Amino acid sequence: MSIKPLGDRVVIKRLEAEETTKSGILLTGAAKERPQEAEVVAIGPGAVVDGSRIPMEVKIGDKVLYSKYAGTEVKLDGEEYTILKQDDILAVVE
Amino acid sequence: MSIKPLGDRVVIKRLEAEETTKSGILLTGAAKERPQEAEVVAIGPGAVVDGSRIPMEVKIGDKVLYSKYAGTEVKLDGEEYTILKQDDILAVVE
Amino acid sequence: MSIKPLGDRVVIKRLEAEETTKSGILLTGAAKERPQEAEVVAIGPGAVVDGSRIPMEVKIGDKVLYSKYAGTEVKLDGEEYTILKQDDILAVVE
Amino acid sequence: MSIKPLGDRVVIKRLEAEETTKSGILLTGAAKERPQEAEVVAIGPGAVVDGSRIPMEVKIGDKVLYSKYAGTEVKLDGEEYTILKQDDILAVVE
Amino acid sequence: MSIKPLGDRVVIKRLEAEETTKSGILLTGAAKERPQEAEVVAIGPGAVVDGSRIPMEVKIGDKVLYSKYAGTEVKLDGEEYTILKQDDILAVVE
Amino acid sequence: MSIKPLGDRVVIKRLEAEETTKSGILLTGAAKERPQEAEVVAIGPGAVVDGSRIPMEVKIGDKVLYSKYAGTEVKLDGEEYTILKQDDILAVVE
Amino acid sequence: MSIKPLGDRVVIKRLEAEETTKSGILLTGAAKERPQEAEVVAIGPGAVVDGSRIPMEVKIGDKVLYSKYAGTEVKLDGEEYTILKQDDILAVVE
Repeated sequence: MSIKPLGDRVVIKRLEAEETTKSGILLTGAAKERPQEAEVVAIGPGAVVDGSRIPMEVKIGDKVLYSKYAGTEVKLDGEEYTILKQDDILAVVE
Repeated sequence: MSIKPLGDRVVIKRLEAEETTKSGILLTGAAKERPQEAEVVAIGPGAVVDGSRIPMEVKIGDKVLYSKYAGTEVKLDGEEYTILKQDDILAVVE
Repeated sequence: MSIKPLGDRVVIKRLEAEETTKSGILLTGAAKERPQEAEVVAIGPGAVVDGSRIPMEVKIGDKVLYSKYAGTEVKLDGEEYTILKQDDILAVVE
Repeated sequence: MSIKPLGDRVVIKRLEAEETTKSGILLTGAAKERPQEAEVVAIGPGAVVDGSRIPMEVKIGDKVLYSKYAGTEVKLDGEEYTILKQDDILAVVE
Repeated sequence: MSIKPLGDRVVIKRLEAEETTKSGILLTGAAKERPQEAEVVAIGPGAVVDGSRIPMEVKIGDKVLYSKYAGTEVKLDGEEYTILKQDDILAVVE
Repeated sequence: MSIKPLGDRVVIKRLEAEETTKSGILLTGAAKERPQEAEVVAIGPGAVVDGSRIPMEVKIGDKVLYSKYAGTEVKLDGEEYTILKQDDILAVVE
Repeated sequence: MSIKPLGDRVVIKRLEAEETTKSGILLTGAAKERPQEAEVVAIGPGAVVDGSRIPMEVKIGDKVLYSKYAGTEVKLDGEEYTILKQDDILAVVE
């Protein structure tokens, strides 16, 4: 992976519907908006608050839920990724 | 439970009307919006402020009141959950 | 009382007009909006700022003035209560 | 006086035009909005910032200038008062 | 002078055009808005930030430039003054 | 390079499409807005927070992704540059 | 120079197009808005944050780039100056 996000940003790769079903999360085409599942592929060093760096809560390989409207999409080596702030990640799915 | 929320987020499961009646909270279909009752099923590690982590005020199993417009809904293993920030929880019902 | 508010929230019970008159506060139906009088029935542990908890200024039993548009109403055991932030309370009436 | 304001709030009683004229402040009915003169009748304990309480700058009996649109009016024992934040007071008139 | 401003507020008296010309500042009736020149007649004790009081940068007698839309006008002993926050003063003219 | 940005600002030079393709980032003319790739040519000393300067995360020569709507364009010695805040940079491409 | 700006304000004098060309910055009449070049003629003592004064990053004589919509214009001894906050200065041109 050749993208190193800044601050508390995270690079994630959206998981397809099949893989989503395996973990038990159903992302149906319902009328109500639901969060997307994705895998963390790169993390920033963490935000700096009052002179000290806050460690990141997510790590590479984590499966996470995030709002599909958060972040910025980028295409690298033909694959789609999303760069977003860690605070836009709702939860880690284990 | 396989969802681990980040920061000061909480995963709650809405309690049905029957269970609500037992605890004495009436959630009638009145015109005026009233908070929903729910049970906490997972909590984050707490927010980090000025370099130290603030302990969570709610714990797993707590019955809580929250605004029904707060948070994001997610379906896990066929069950509906809501992920919201602890600050969107109004009170613990004991 | 079985509601424990979070943070610096307070649960209050609105005082009726008769009781209000006894304390000398007149809450007439005037055109100009006036604050409501209520009694504090439960208080949260206080907000956490910079890692230390700020003690609450109001205590259970206090008669308080608050804006009638503040907070969220909740019905418990057939009685109406309001959950609001302590900062929405204007003053204690002694 | 039986109202104890919270935080950095202040209870003031508006001074009538006659008394205002004695101190030399003219509050004419001019087109341009001018601040009102009032007397402080009760003060809160002060705001809490970073865990320490900030002492109030005004004291009971002070004559103050304030914007007539600031604060909330309340009627106590037949008299009109205004509850406002100390920061809405412009100056003390000596 | 009998007005004592609170916090970091300042009481200033607008300088007339003649005096303005002496110091070399031309306040013409141009289409473009220009700051006004005034003299400081009273200063507050300074704002309190994190428990310590910030000393004022201006002192009584300073000639200052300020935006003519800032602050509140007040008439005292027949003279017009403006009460404004020190941050609304752009510069001291020496 | 003769521009020294202030605070946590960064001066970057946009990379052309050819160079972009070499690093594997495809910036196609798609309907969806994608970040631009650029090279850092000058960095500020870092922002000052609570009296201490935060070191910059990017360095001169870094290839970065940034939103094409961020910052201000400036022309120097016939070349186009963009001055933007480091927080508007999404990631470093390595 | 007889203007002493307050806080982190700076007084600058806009450089004319001829001088601008010498330093290599072209400020053409293009459709796209570009920053202006100016020379710093006076600086404030710096902002006070958390009780300590932050040193200024620019000094008298610096050539700077700034947005032409920032700050307030003032005429002194027949010359035009602009008073603006240091944060509205994008970069120093060396």
